[in-house]
Amino acid sequence: MKGVVVRNIPRVDAAVAAGLARMGVATVHEAMGRLGLMQPTMRPIYAGASIAGSAVTALLAPGDNWMLHVAVEQCRKGDVVVAVPTSPCTDGYFGELLATSMASRGVLGLVIEAGTRDIKALTEMRFPVWSRAISAQGTVKETIGSVNVPVACAGAMVNPGDVIVADDDGVVVVPVADAAKVLKAAEARTAKEESTRARLAKGELGLDIYGMRERLAEKGLVYLDSAADLKGR
Amino acid sequence: MKGVVVRNIPRVDAAVAAGLARMGVATVHEAMGRLGLMQPTMRPIYAGASIAGSAVTALLAPGDNWMLHVAVEQCRKGDVVVAVPTSPCTDGYFGELLATSMASRGVLGLVIEAGTRDIKALTEMRFPVWSRAISAQGTVKETIGSVNVPVACAGAMVNPGDVIVADDDGVVVVPVADAAKVLKAAEARTAKEESTRARLAKGELGLDIYGMRERLAEKGLVYLDSAADLKGR
Amino acid sequence: MKGVVVRNIPRVDAAVAAGLARMGVATVHEAMGRLGLMQPTMRPIYAGASIAGSAVTALLAPGDNWMLHVAVEQCRKGDVVVAVPTSPCTDGYFGELLATSMASRGVLGLVIEAGTRDIKALTEMRFPVWSRAISAQGTVKETIGSVNVPVACAGAMVNPGDVIVADDDGVVVVPVADAAKVLKAAEARTAKEESTRARLAKGELGLDIYGMRERLAEKGLVYLDSAADLKGR
Amino acid sequence: MKGVVVRNIPRVDAAVAAGLARMGVATVHEAMGRLGLMQPTMRPIYAGASIAGSAVTALLAPGDNWMLHVAVEQCRKGDVVVAVPTSPCTDGYFGELLATSMASRGVLGLVIEAGTRDIKALTEMRFPVWSRAISAQGTVKETIGSVNVPVACAGAMVNPGDVIVADDDGVVVVPVADAAKVLKAAEARTAKEESTRARLAKGELGLDIYGMRERLAEKGLVYLDSAADLKGR
Amino acid sequence: MKGVVVRNIPRVDAAVAAGLARMGVATVHEAMGRLGLMQPTMRPIYAGASIAGSAVTALLAPGDNWMLHVAVEQCRKGDVVVAVPTSPCTDGYFGELLATSMASRGVLGLVIEAGTRDIKALTEMRFPVWSRAISAQGTVKETIGSVNVPVACAGAMVNPGDVIVADDDGVVVVPVADAAKVLKAAEARTAKEESTRARLAKGELGLDIYGMRERLAEKGLVYLDSAADLKGR
Amino acid sequence: MKGVVVRNIPRVDAAVAAGLARMGVATVHEAMGRLGLMQPTMRPIYAGASIAGSAVTALLAPGDNWMLHVAVEQCRKGDVVVAVPTSPCTDGYFGELLATSMASRGVLGLVIEAGTRDIKALTEMRFPVWSRAISAQGTVKETIGSVNVPVACAGAMVNPGDVIVADDDGVVVVPVADAAKVLKAAEARTAKEESTRARLAKGELGLDIYGMRERLAEKGLVYLDSAADLKGR
Repeated sequence: MKGVVVRNIPRVDAAVAAGLARMGVATVHEAMGRLGLMQPTMRPIYAGASIAGSAVTALLAPGDNWMLHVAVEQCRKGDVVVAVPTSPCTDGYFGELLATSMASRGVLGLVIEAGTRDIKALTEMRFPVWSRAISAQGTVKETIGSVNVPVACAGAMVNPGDVIVADDDGVVVVPVADAAKVLKAAEARTAKEESTRARLAKGELGLDIYGMRERLAEKGLVYLDSAADLKGR
Repeated sequence: MKGVVVRNIPRVDAAVAAGLARMGVATVHEAMGRLGLMQPTMRPIYAGASIAGSAVTALLAPGDNWMLHVAVEQCRKGDVVVAVPTSPCTDGYFGELLATSMASRGVLGLVIEAGTRDIKALTEMRFPVWSRAISAQGTVKETIGSVNVPVACAGAMVNPGDVIVADDDGVVVVPVADAAKVLKAAEARTAKEESTRARLAKGELGLDIYGMRERLAEKGLVYLDSAADLKGR
Repeated sequence: MKGVVVRNIPRVDAAVAAGLARMGVATVHEAMGRLGLMQPTMRPIYAGASIAGSAVTALLAPGDNWMLHVAVEQCRKGDVVVAVPTSPCTDGYFGELLATSMASRGVLGLVIEAGTRDIKALTEMRFPVWSRAISAQGTVKETIGSVNVPVACAGAMVNPGDVIVADDDGVVVVPVADAAKVLKAAEARTAKEESTRARLAKGELGLDIYGMRERLAEKGLVYLDSAADLKGR
Repeated sequence: MKGVVVRNIPRVDAAVAAGLARMGVATVHEAMGRLGLMQPTMRPIYAGASIAGSAVTALLAPGDNWMLHVAVEQCRKGDVVVAVPTSPCTDGYFGELLATSMASRGVLGLVIEAGTRDIKALTEMRFPVWSRAISAQGTVKETIGSVNVPVACAGAMVNPGDVIVADDDGVVVVPVADAAKVLKAAEARTAKEESTRARLAKGELGLDIYGMRERLAEKGLVYLDSAADLKGR
Repeated sequence: MKGVVVRNIPRVDAAVAAGLARMGVATVHEAMGRLGLMQPTMRPIYAGASIAGSAVTALLAPGDNWMLHVAVEQCRKGDVVVAVPTSPCTDGYFGELLATSMASRGVLGLVIEAGTRDIKALTEMRFPVWSRAISAQGTVKETIGSVNVPVACAGAMVNPGDVIVADDDGVVVVPVADAAKVLKAAEARTAKEESTRARLAKGELGLDIYGMRERLAEKGLVYLDSAADLKGR
Repeated sequence: MKGVVVRNIPRVDAAVAAGLARMGVATVHEAMGRLGLMQPTMRPIYAGASIAGSAVTALLAPGDNWMLHVAVEQCRKGDVVVAVPTSPCTDGYFGELLATSMASRGVLGLVIEAGTRDIKALTEMRFPVWSRAISAQGTVKETIGSVNVPVACAGAMVNPGDVIVADDDGVVVVPVADAAKVLKAAEARTAKEESTRARLAKGELGLDIYGMRERLAEKGLVYLDSAADLKGR
């Protein structure tokens, strides 16, 4: 599967993607049953961005960004590019020119398990990138890789077309076939949290709202009046 | 000491805490004789927050945030929660709901040697967190830990009630019994620095202000006119 | 070469330095033939700073910032201090007072392969620092080092007087003798990128602008219509 | 795909697996076209082990090794267990008892993107483990995961049944359908290297054996007689 | 508590210490209720060492090993030295001479959250060290610290006299008052594991021995015949 | 200085090199005044190797080992190759074939701030490598670098011909012009340590041998009889 570009991939419905972006990474991840999260080494280059869209994947040679140029042609409005080198690398695979090219095709952002550069320009363009490093180190264009093959990015498996949801909390991957279902679960979760938040804001305790006291006692939790009572335990 | 909640802990005087927050972490740490600093892996989720208050501690099972719910009940206005898992963990133990609950009780912030999430919401609420990671990964509620027992957090020992001072420079722990004395020392230090700063701003050299030239010469420091003079040394 | 201060070092022309700062780290690094970049562990303490100036170097004992005080005296308007401890260290060697002193002499910023502190004050002063850590941990003044000797900082060799260019993308070192030539190359590169950017912004593909299609085919890149065609490859 | 155990998976032919183990990770990885390698954070607990077998995969909750017990039942002689927690974790999921159980079923070893323990006993048993950490920290059995679903382990995608080749150089994953073909390519590569090694051992240069001199000259490589000739370049 | 040496500390009974060493870190940690484990960054400098003894603690200035010399005088036969710098440091605080001195007093080994050196000599002497780094970088003797005060070492709290158990799996701390009780619990655990191991070695499954099948079904674990059945789940 | 090979470099006298190897890294580093040490991330692939020889340096493109082949031709008996990529990289630049080639020319070992592979074969050949990673990931031969130019390797500056001393404690660089002088200082140091070791082995204290007690008292070190006396300090 090296040296291959797959032209047609599934895409998520735009409204579903928008809904998932609104829900946010933490809620979507919970709604997924806590699957699909990328590792916390993946950080946004600026705070406040929040996107969701289908993944166009790129499998890259180490220190070689050729396949990003190939990937751009496969992108459509609303896509998110997910790029992974085949060995650990912090080089700056991506910068202002590629961002201009992707933005012109309606790409929402980039998730790359490597480095990115031109941070100031990308921030001014509001083209968000989630990466494991910031590095000015450029890359060569000598070795081919693949576009739109399954990749493992920062601990998560990404199939082309899967929905990438990314914000300040990180990046989560939703299988495209599950997107609508996950959105519904996320919305239900959010609705429920709304009333819990109101009660917590008034000073009610989670211990009472969630009815935790009995189970804590069963597990053996003991309350002591002071540190002095710890002696001899 | 597992499975224990201690209800009563000492608290720092509010005015002393406010004074320590005003002095800041770097100055307080110097005033402490350079003891009590947490490791620099502990970073704030947003810039500019500055707090000080007595620690309510929570010892957590890995990937399990149950004890944070238990800890909330033990918190009072002006407290700072300090939470530590019993093995290294980056999971997102803490988010918007727990922050809402803590904020409703007047808690000033959280220091956690693990991960946190809901970064955008916490930033908008201005509920500061110092953590070693940002991660959307949720936690379970299956294993008990303890509240208000001594903990080791990011290299510093924290006894319940100790004053936690945290800002953009990191987190330092002041034993509650020493808080007033440390504040006084910090204020003295700051006053002295004020006049030094004024002299430095005018262009005077630290070498002269601190009288360093003689001791440098004793240690053998040599001045050369140019790199050419390095040859043969 | 320990215990030595070299008084006279070459300096870059101010206009050339200003030009290099304007070009930015990523472009200058490309113009250098991808040499001289510091490792991406070196990060700015706040976003948006962009400087270039000749290096005054300081070789420091671990946990000992004495030589920074010695270095200040050797600084002139437009310089950038580059400081390196002789073993890995995250201690906070540098803070508000030293920044005040350096600023009063016209120093543009500090690059230190260690920690810095007083982040809030430095940010308000707009005195930029690129460091590998933020830490309130203070340092002693017991062991001498050297000023204006060659140092290896975060993977790059720095000779006193070399031009340090630093911005949100990191830090790159330009030999002072090459500075004008590198600026010219960077400007040529930027001019060329300008027209490329315009074409990319209109939706032209890099594949076509750079004429990549033929060489990709030669390397064996294959286009498939769908993932189903991957089977058996 | 959480909470699922798949009972039947493909298995590699035993002779092919033995051949791949003999070839070793570095050669197999080259024969794969440099795909499928796990990250170098995965290290063996003792030197000298060398195995290859089909993967029985386990997707684990953080700090929870329940699914390893479930996975054992699905193992056959010659299998290799590949285990991954759903968030980064160094806890000691695996020790002597599980190793005894796996060994009794003919499992060749474990690859786990987490921690392992009982290092002395495992070494004496010669039950090899490749892991990212060694930790005595035990795990709970509270949350289910899955067995024999696709997983991303240390940057590599692993489908159940894929051949895991592991030795002192690390771990590489060969799709089960490609195993025989990859073995053939690896053997061809090894045969070719044999004669190259003999020539190199006699003092012939790679520059000549591989005919590199012309291409180096084309790329612009310049030979100088001494460092003095570097000036002005 | 800086600049203090406490002369008298509690010591564990020698037979209890020997028993804890025999049980090993993983078993003792379980018997402790999974408390007191140091982080897995602490590694032995050679494989196979296994010790247990009361802690003589040393709180060190960064890059300064003066207090190790002070600590030696406080050591007795059977002790283990636990040393911690007040900020993160990898310098080589400890080598052959200090090991010779400690060995002459019957010290069993060193646990240091910093670096050590003279690895070959220490290995030949069989003087074990658990450290977070190996580094030839020497240290100064300029700043005092303390001996036999409570310290936080690699995430664990250590009170002087606490039993340090260390082997290939890491380091665990047992409060001296609990040592006999923990030994008993560890021995009971080991006895029980013995029969389990025998059953596992014969091929019985943990699923049956531990009676896990019912609870797994309750949690919703589903068995499928093949990967094809995953579709649509 | 990219794309350059310098043919003639200075070499250390063989007897001096042998003497430095015998002294070992820690002692040589002390004799150097604690300069020239590489960072502790550089580790030997097997224990017990100990070498010293003049550096043939190679500056490599990331993920590209072409210049190692070029470097071999420049090597003579007794040399040590020092290789550095221009951006952080863990790829396996070096393996059995290159080792065979280097060994046939009398090269003593390799120091590389990147990855190496074929660990088993290199260990059997007794060809030592100090590297920051072990990785089976191969490299390409597409981009030229340089041979025998100054490089910064793991924090140390290396000029071609400088003496590289490497053993289990790490790697230190001795300027070739200083080698004889440093050897003499190291031998003097070792001789002096010999008598100290004998005294320590008999139970004398460093406090007395080095006469530390008075200076400790001056610095304010206080001896207390028990922990109880810590209260109120």
